[in-house]
Formats: sequence, C-alpha cells, structure tokens
Amino acid sequence: MQPIGRKRWAIAEGYIPSQSSFAHRTLISHETACILNAADQDAHVSITLFFTDREPVGPYRVTVAARRTLHLRFNDLKDPEPVPRDTDYSSVFESDVPIIVQHTRMDTRHAEVSLLSTTAYAEA
Amino acid sequence: MQPIGRKRWAIAEGYIPSQSSFAHRTLISHETACILNAADQDAHVSITLFFTDREPVGPYRVTVAARRTLHLRFNDLKDPEPVPRDTDYSSVFESDVPIIVQHTRMDTRHAEVSLLSTTAYAEA
Amino acid sequence: MQPIGRKRWAIAEGYIPSQSSFAHRTLISHETACILNAADQDAHVSITLFFTDREPVGPYRVTVAARRTLHLRFNDLKDPEPVPRDTDYSSVFESDVPIIVQHTRMDTRHAEVSLLSTTAYAEA
Amino acid sequence: MQPIGRKRWAIAEGYIPSQSSFAHRTLISHETACILNAADQDAHVSITLFFTDREPVGPYRVTVAARRTLHLRFNDLKDPEPVPRDTDYSSVFESDVPIIVQHTRMDTRHAEVSLLSTTAYAEA
Repeated sequence: MQPIGRKRWAIAEGYIPSQSSFAHRTLISHETACILNAADQDAHVSITLFFTDREPVGPYRVTVAARRTLHLRFNDLKDPEPVPRDTDYSSVFESDVPIIVQHTRMDTRHAEVSLLSTTAYAEA
Repeated sequence: MQPIGRKRWAIAEGYIPSQSSFAHRTLISHETACILNAADQDAHVSITLFFTDREPVGPYRVTVAARRTLHLRFNDLKDPEPVPRDTDYSSVFESDVPIIVQHTRMDTRHAEVSLLSTTAYAEA
Repeated sequence: MQPIGRKRWAIAEGYIPSQSSFAHRTLISHETACILNAADQDAHVSITLFFTDREPVGPYRVTVAARRTLHLRFNDLKDPEPVPRDTDYSSVFESDVPIIVQHTRMDTRHAEVSLLSTTAYAEA
Repeated sequence: MQPIGRKRWAIAEGYIPSQSSFAHRTLISHETACILNAADQDAHVSITLFFTDREPVGPYRVTVAARRTLHLRFNDLKDPEPVPRDTDYSSVFESDVPIIVQHTRMDTRHAEVSLLSTTAYAEA
C-alpha cells in the first residue's frame, strides 16, 4: 500500500476520569489514541504529554508494527510515569513513518456510556 | 457539481461491540463509514482493514454510484470475511474518484444510545 | 478580521431520527450545520443534499450575515422539500465567501441525550 | 520540540446549556476549548465570539504558557462579558505562536453525561 498519514500529530484534549460505573476493562473510563501504521516498516512513536502547571513528561515510546493498528490506552502508559487521573493534559505524537492518529474517550462516571472521538491534528 | 473530496482516507478507530440493548437494526451497536460521492461518475472503493496482531484483510469492494451517498455499516461487510466483534481495527479507503468519508459509532451496550463521529483523515 | 474558512464543505453523515423523548425544541432529535461567517460581507450558501437511491435535492439557499453564526437545523429545511426522517443523507455547502462548517447531531430517541459532532470536510 | 500547530482556529459550534443534573464543577454542563502550546514561547491568544443576531464580542485574552496546555471553559470567560447560556455562538482563536485547538461539550441536562468533541478548523 502507498504510504498514508503524517509523522507528527497532536491531541489538545486529554482527561481520564478516575471513576467508572463498571469493572470490566472495556467499560472502565479511558482515553485511547488509535494509531494506524499502514506502511511496510515498523513505526517508532514518541509521545509527549503536556500539562497545565508543570513541564511536559516523556517521551513515552511505543512501536506500531508494519501493517498494524494499536489502540493505545493512555490509562496503560507507565514509563516514565503513569498519566494522572482527573487531570487536564494534551499529547503530541512523533513517528519515523507516516501514521494516522484518532482520539477517543469513553466516560462511564455515570451508569451509561458516553463517548467522544476526533481525528487528531496532523502537522502538514 | 465541481469535484469535491479526496481519493484516499483512513479511520484509525474501529471497534464494534458485540452487545446491544435493542433488537431493532437502527439501534444495534454498529460502526459506519458514511461515503459521499458527489461526482458524476461511480466511485469504486477498496477498503482494507488493519488489526492489532494479524495481517490486513481486504480489499472489500463497494461501489458508490454517481451523486449518491452510502452509509456503509462495517457490521455488514462479509467478503472476504466478516469484521470480528469486540476487536480493535482500523480502515483505509481508496477510491478512483474523489469521495468524502465520515466515521460514526453507535454504542448501545447499555440501555442508552452513545454516539461518536469524526471526519476521517484525508490524504493530501 | 482577516478572512478565515473555505468556500466548499461536505458532511458525509446525515440522519435525523423521527423519534424523540422530549417535546422541547432544544431536545428534539435533530441535526445541525453550524455555519460561521467571520467575514465582513454576507455569505450566500447553497446546500445540496445527497441520498442513497435518488438524485440530489437542492439547492437549499441560506444567507449567513457578515460577522454572524447560523446554527442551521436540517430539520427546519423546507424549500425545495423537507429532509426526510430516518433516512441516510449527506450534504455539500457552497458559499461565495469563506465560512466554517461544523456538524452536530442530538439524538434523543431514548430518555437520555446523545451527541456527536465533527468539523466538516473542507475542500482545499 | 519543533513547532506544531497553527495560529488561527475556528469552532463553528457553540452552545452552553444552562441546566445540569450535577452540582460538581466537573459535571456541570460546559464547553471547553483545549489549547495546546507545545512551543518554547508563551502563546498570547485572542478569542472572538460570534452570535446569531448581534455583533461579535471580544477579544477575550488568554495566555497559554510555553509547553503547557489550557483547557479553557467558555463558562469561565468574563471579560469583556460572560458567554450567555442557551445561546448559539461560534469562536475564532488568533495566537502569536502555533497552537492546537480542540472543542468539547459536556451536556448533563439529563441525568447522564453526554459528550462531543472535534479538532477545530485550522486556517492553512
């Protein structure tokens, strides 16, 4: 497949609620960066998190294998440090091959599921 | 109408919940790619699905007639194989004429309707 | 203000549920095209609707005054004909001055409010 | 970090419901512009609000410090005047350094949480 995507992406929104109405992993409140690597080489992605009142944290490093998608939960990031809950943040993604990034939040603080999603901002 | 759209699109998010709270087709949990072909020729669209841990599947082939819209449910794709439920995926759309692609999920795992939508990523 | 926006926009998703759980106008199931005209001249906008199995309908004509926003409900379009409920459609917007278009659906088929929104596709 | 973002952004949708089902700040109905400034200089951002039937209001001025994110609630804007509730509006953001803007609404008029979000329109 011809290359598709961009190498630099940003998501200005970020907020993981600490509360959930459900215990099952699929229904715990979470935020996800869905990363598609349609290329024939692995994508090495560096993620930097930005906060309201302290210096950025990162890079978090993930590899998205060639011709694979990774639906990365911000909840699961651990190194260099976990993403704090109930805290505003933003994220920037830098990859060595073109990727596509889409942002999703599932919010189950109350007894129903609430969703948001948007294609992230891609640097030209 | 002057041509509008692009020939290559990607949706990084993809996930069809296997559960629904309703039996009616309109309220079953589903994901849709809304494809607009405003051109005066039919659009022949090839869709490739990407997964977390196996090779891409496709092409799925659909035709969107000239001056028509197709709200294509990923749930309905069958050939070369159905889209697995409760499974992360991504999709790439390649068309021979310019189209516009928008992604929507309706999630009715619980008793209320939850929606997300975004204009897909268009390759420049 | 310096001009901002584009003259041609498209929304591939379109679907107005015929059912609502509430009687108040603000909570009736609806779809909206939010149109911002930040320019100093009025924007004359022609809207064309596309369907699954019949020819496009339009143009619907609306004027967005200079330095004004219009949150246009598809539910309110009447001329040349109302937008059918429970029916897939898409829309294209053509303006004589640059505008910004964002698409929103409020879905109240069940007792809670469900929302989706996305910046529409802008032709370069 | 290399600069990322654009200097001019627009959000065509805007509507803050006056009602909420919850008293806690995090669950009051609100709209947010999430603004990421990944640059090494502070971003001075001027926001102009547009309405249906009166002249634009602004500029509202906010500073997003270097390497910080600001999740700005439209509900909190006060100077030159508060944002009216239950009223359609749009917004334009002009910054002296590149930023990224994402729009979110939390709607809790009824007992559940409903969310929408989209990356804003960026002027090329």
